[in-house]
Formats: sequence, structure tokens, C-alpha cells
Amino acid sequence: MANASKNLDVVALTQALISRPSVTPADAGAMDTVQRTLEDLGFTCHRLKFGDIENLYARRGTASPNLCFAGHTDVVPVGTRNLWRYDPFGAEIHDGAVIGRGAVDMKGGIAAWIAAVSRYADQAGSLSLLITGDEEGVAKDGTVRVVQWLKERGEVIDHCIVGEPSSSAQLGDMIKVGRRGSVNATFTVSGKQGHVAYPQRALNPLPVLVDLLAALKDRVLDDGYADFQPSNLEITTIDTGNTATNIIPQDARARINIRFNPAHTGAELKAWFEALAAEHAARSGTKIEVQTAISGEAFLTEAGPFVDLIADVIKDTLGIETDRSTTGGTSDARFIRDLCPVVEFGLVGQTMHQINECASVADLEALTDAYSALIEAYFSKFGSGS
Amino acid sequence: MANASKNLDVVALTQALISRPSVTPADAGAMDTVQRTLEDLGFTCHRLKFGDIENLYARRGTASPNLCFAGHTDVVPVGTRNLWRYDPFGAEIHDGAVIGRGAVDMKGGIAAWIAAVSRYADQAGSLSLLITGDEEGVAKDGTVRVVQWLKERGEVIDHCIVGEPSSSAQLGDMIKVGRRGSVNATFTVSGKQGHVAYPQRALNPLPVLVDLLAALKDRVLDDGYADFQPSNLEITTIDTGNTATNIIPQDARARINIRFNPAHTGAELKAWFEALAAEHAARSGTKIEVQTAISGEAFLTEAGPFVDLIADVIKDTLGIETDRSTTGGTSDARFIRDLCPVVEFGLVGQTMHQINECASVADLEALTDAYSALIEAYFSKFGSGS
Repeated sequence: MANASKNLDVVALTQALISRPSVTPADAGAMDTVQRTLEDLGFTCHRLKFGDIENLYARRGTASPNLCFAGHTDVVPVGTRNLWRYDPFGAEIHDGAVIGRGAVDMKGGIAAWIAAVSRYADQAGSLSLLITGDEEGVAKDGTVRVVQWLKERGEVIDHCIVGEPSSSAQLGDMIKVGRRGSVNATFTVSGKQGHVAYPQRALNPLPVLVDLLAALKDRVLDDGYADFQPSNLEITTIDTGNTATNIIPQDARARINIRFNPAHTGAELKAWFEALAAEHAARSGTKIEVQTAISGEAFLTEAGPFVDLIADVIKDTLGIETDRSTTGGTSDARFIRDLCPVVEFGLVGQTMHQINECASVADLEALTDAYSALIEAYFSKFGSGS
Repeated sequence: MANASKNLDVVALTQALISRPSVTPADAGAMDTVQRTLEDLGFTCHRLKFGDIENLYARRGTASPNLCFAGHTDVVPVGTRNLWRYDPFGAEIHDGAVIGRGAVDMKGGIAAWIAAVSRYADQAGSLSLLITGDEEGVAKDGTVRVVQWLKERGEVIDHCIVGEPSSSAQLGDMIKVGRRGSVNATFTVSGKQGHVAYPQRALNPLPVLVDLLAALKDRVLDDGYADFQPSNLEITTIDTGNTATNIIPQDARARINIRFNPAHTGAELKAWFEALAAEHAARSGTKIEVQTAISGEAFLTEAGPFVDLIADVIKDTLGIETDRSTTGGTSDARFIRDLCPVVEFGLVGQTMHQINECASVADLEALTDAYSALIEAYFSKFGSGS
């Protein structure tokens, strides 16, 4: 591999990406920034627009093996804007950290990979990037469709690194070799509107919803499974929108999310939701509608040379024994695992999705060094001619 | 009591009042109509404007006892205008009923009382009217302030009839001799926002709110009290406003309403809310804020000669055994009970606050007769010289 004169600055690239307010499904120019930077580094770019979503597949080289980096330019909403100490799209540096929505999840990760790639003019095989704008949203016009497109083209990817913020407390302390499944369910309880002073003429959906949610949240799903944490249920919203203090509302709605290990399947959880809803509807005389969306099933990338290589690089460059974990949220790794072994390795996720999300400058630079070492080690071990 | 030549038409006066679109806080000339009519009947009128609200205290005679009629000229909004068969302020007569907003609640009641009064030139004591334009709204610049003004003047009222539509299915089948109290409380639970996949880094306020609401709704407040129904709690809204499926929200809010009998006081319920909130906050590590608004305490006008007199008049004129009830929503009786015994007696409330509100012409005339008989019986029993 030849060293290149281009040596892109990871911090400047992170800032450039954060300054594009690409809250799903908006792109706000984030993908153009990635594409222009990669073209300058010799990549051939395929822009893939599915629905409203911008996607990109970029490749440098034609030989095998093809090491892919997968990531997303979209970010979650900022939440309560006035709780942020600084502009969430300002990308200001304070106390040694770049502050802004997407700093760690995962514009910083994309910037670190591209900065690492910029240190080399070529490689003994191919480098590719699969970047989507639909990871934080419904994820139906993102990686899942790019993977479909790659399969149809007969494009071979040998191994994939996903740049999600996999580290827990310290950079490199954790990589993700599998993921829990995820399912969302919305329960809508319909009763009969009326005046609070005459409850006998109405049917309040809210106590029914409270009992149903109590039954859902109070079940212990399991105590863990193989390399996985216990499955977990969170109520994510309850909404009624009744502004009148003297009116019993007609309808109320709640949504839950379950992250589950291989002890469960999406189908089994869906059946449980429906049975529980039917039971509470029958008991109360209300109507309860359930809408279930299974975002992904639980999976595990087996131990082997690719996982070992990453763990070795982390030990050499960051001086830490990494934990091969299956904790945390879903990621697009669930789609890529159909193509090749996939491992997530990126920044420390502590502030992801939170107010005042930030990435330390030191971590951005150290991750760039680790990614750079990983590229070298990968082609040294698996590369053509090796 | 001398019969007067004036014999006002209850239907024409009801129509004149309905034609003023006095949706709280608007007056639209309704109070002027009442005042001019009463001045023609020999009343001395005091117009009392508090804030934006028109109020009126009118009295004829200076001797004791002083029998007061209380009512309101303001009405609730019309709701969806195009669901009305006729103009809600047109006061048209169709199928034997005057149609319009306020027909039964309670412009028809005011008209019936004034028409009854117009049959007499004087009385063995005093007749007074307390009319407000702020009963359907927040009720802070209405009867509560007129009562304060009356107290400051040393004005004595001996007994009061409130002209609310107390009848249930048939004119005279129900009078209200007390009312439950009403209290609203809003609970705001604050946790810590985060990603659903990392619940250990967040603090979800929703399961805490579910447990708190379960504790509130599952308490049996009482089994009833004297002439009252059991106290009742309704959850009126739960709101979060979290649109993201993968985010644990920072805050969530719920509101409840309790209608309570004299087994409880607003202060005691407020203390219960606060103790329960503190307990659930301590247990969960969340912050829980409670905002309590006591709309009125429970009260009962004890059985006695005044209540008996009204029941007897109803039996004699309407041929029905009235039910001495404490059911239903709050009314301005809650303020007047500080001055004297107060009973609500008026039209049939079935169409109140609804689309196509209407008062039957027969009921308006029968109520005028009943009010007229009540005035005669009252001064015959309690009047000076009786």
C-alpha cells in the first residue's frame, strides 16, 4: 500500500458533516460532502436514491478482497432545543470535544474512516463505503435496499466494519459482534367520549391503557441468552391530546419497543401483544388495536479471523482488550450480515441521541489511527498477494 | 302580593336572549336585555364589570326575606357549526321547541324566572337576581366576585334558586341540593432522555407514570356519602409527544379529575397527590411535579323547609315527585352556598352543551308556572307578615 500525500483532518470533516442538519429523512447536503471527499480520494461513487432517501455506494479498486465500511449520515432529532448548551448543528469545539447532533452517532465515525483511508493511495484489494441516510428512521429505503442492489449487481463484499459508536466508556473497550432484535408496537385503545361528571355514560380508554402497559412492562422476558443481555421493554410514548379538563377522551395510544435476544422472535412477541390486547379489550369493553413492526431479529457474527484481527488491532493501537459484545440497539449490521461477516467498531456512545451529544477530539484522532492500522492489517492478512 | 298587568312572554324573552351570541367571555348585549327588562319590572340594577365580564345584581323591595334567583347569560361555543340543523343564534321555533345555544343552559331558565316575576307587582319581602357572564368559562370574574361584593355591602340573601337545567328526563324530575367537589391534578414526571437500546443510560418517566396512575385509579375513594354518589377519579389525558421510536423520552405528563363527595376535601386530595408523587419519585429516581387546581368543594344544602317547599311546589304544579340529587357537574351554586341555602331547579338538561340545543315551548311555559307558584308559596311561608 502506498502512502498518499492527502491526509485529511478528521475534526474538520466531522464538523463539516455535523453542520448539515440531516435529521432523517432530510439529507441537507451531507451525502454530497461525503461523495465529493471520496471522489477526491479516487473512489467511484454510485448515488442511490430510494424514495426520499439519499444513499451512496463508493468503491476504490476492483480486486478482491473488498473491505467495506458502512455508516449513516442521518441523525435523530435534537429534542428540546433550549437544553443544548451550544447550537446542535454548530459543530463548535468546547473542552476538547466537537459538539453537535451526530457527533458520535455517527458522523464522527464516517469522518475517522475517510481520514484513515486518505492516508493511503491504494490497497491490495478494494475499499468500499456503504453510506445511507435512513438508519435512524424507518430504515426501509436505506441499507436494506442498497444491499438488495449490491446483490443484484453481483457485487461481492468480503468483510464489513460498521462505524456505529460501539465503545462503551473508553474508545475500543467494546466491539459489537451481534445484535438484539427490535420490535415496536403501538396500542390504540378506543372507548367512548363523555363528561367526567357522568362516567357511567362514557368509557374511559386511559385506565385500560394503564393496566395494559403495566402488564407489558412488568413481565420479565428472560434472564439473558448466550452472549446477550436480557431482553428489555421500554414504553416510548403515551398520547391522548385531550385539552379539556372535564372530558373523558375517546381514544388513547401508546408505543413500546422491545430489544430482544435470540430467546425471542419478533413473531412470538407480536402474538403476545395481540393476545394481551384481546384480553384487556374483552375485560374492559374497549376496542384495542395493535400495530407491530419488527425492525430486525436477533443475530450473532461467529468468532473467527476477522473478529480476531479487529481485536488485535485495538489492543495494539489503543492498548485495550476489547469486549466482543451483543448489547445495544439495532444497526444496519442486521442487513449487511446477509452479505458477509460484520462487526461494529466506533466511538464511545455515551452521548448518542442525547442533549449535548459530543465526540472528543482525542477520540476522533485515535479512532482514525486505529482504523488506519486496521486497513493496513486487513490487507496484510487477507489482501491479494498476501 | 298584587298581580301586575305585565305578563311577559317566556318564549319571546328566551328568543331575545338566544339571539345575543354571548359565548364566554362575550356578552353581545345579553346583559342589557336582562337589565332593561328588570328595570321595567321595578328592579334596581347594579351592573358589575369584573375584568372583561358583565355581571348584574338586581333587587326589588328592601324588606326581608330576600329570595334570589341566580343564573348566567354566557353560553358554551356552538361546536361544529354545520352539524346544527338551524342557526344556533337564530332562536327559531321548530317542532314545538326553541332552538339555539343557551336554550336550556340557561337563557330559557332566566326568561322563565323573569316571566314568573312579571306576574306580580310586589312581594312580601324582596326578590333579587344575580346574573353573571362567566359561568361556562374560568368563572373567576363572575359569581365568585359578585358574592364577594354582596358580602362587602352587607347584602343579605335568605334563599337562592339557581336556574341551571337540573331536570333529567322530564321537567321537575330532579333538583340539585348539593354538588360534588371537583379537583384537577397534572402530574409531570421527568426522567432522562436516551436511546431505547441503552436504558441503563436513561431514566424512562413512562413506567413511573403508569405505576403512579395505577395507584391513583385503583384506590377506592369511598362508597358514597349521605345523598351522594361515590367519589370518582378519571384520568383525562396522558401525553408525551415523542415521535421517535428509538428514544426514551425526558418527560411525560398526565391529568386526572376527581369528583368528590363530602367524605373528601380538595386539600386532603391535594395532599394525597403530593405524597403519592413524592413516594413514586423517591422509588424511581425521577422528579415528579404536581399541579393541583381545586374547582370547588363538595357541599350539601341540608333538608329543611326551603327544600321541602320547592319539592311541594313541583308536586303541585308539575305533578311529579322530584329527586333531591347531588349528581352532575359543578355550578355557581358552589359560590352562593356561602351566603344562604341554595337549590338548583330548571329545565331538562339533555341537550345542554350539545349540537341542536333546544327548549320545548311547553317546558318553558310550565317552568314559568312552577316558578310563579314557587314565588307565591315562598312569600306565603317565609314572607314578612306571614
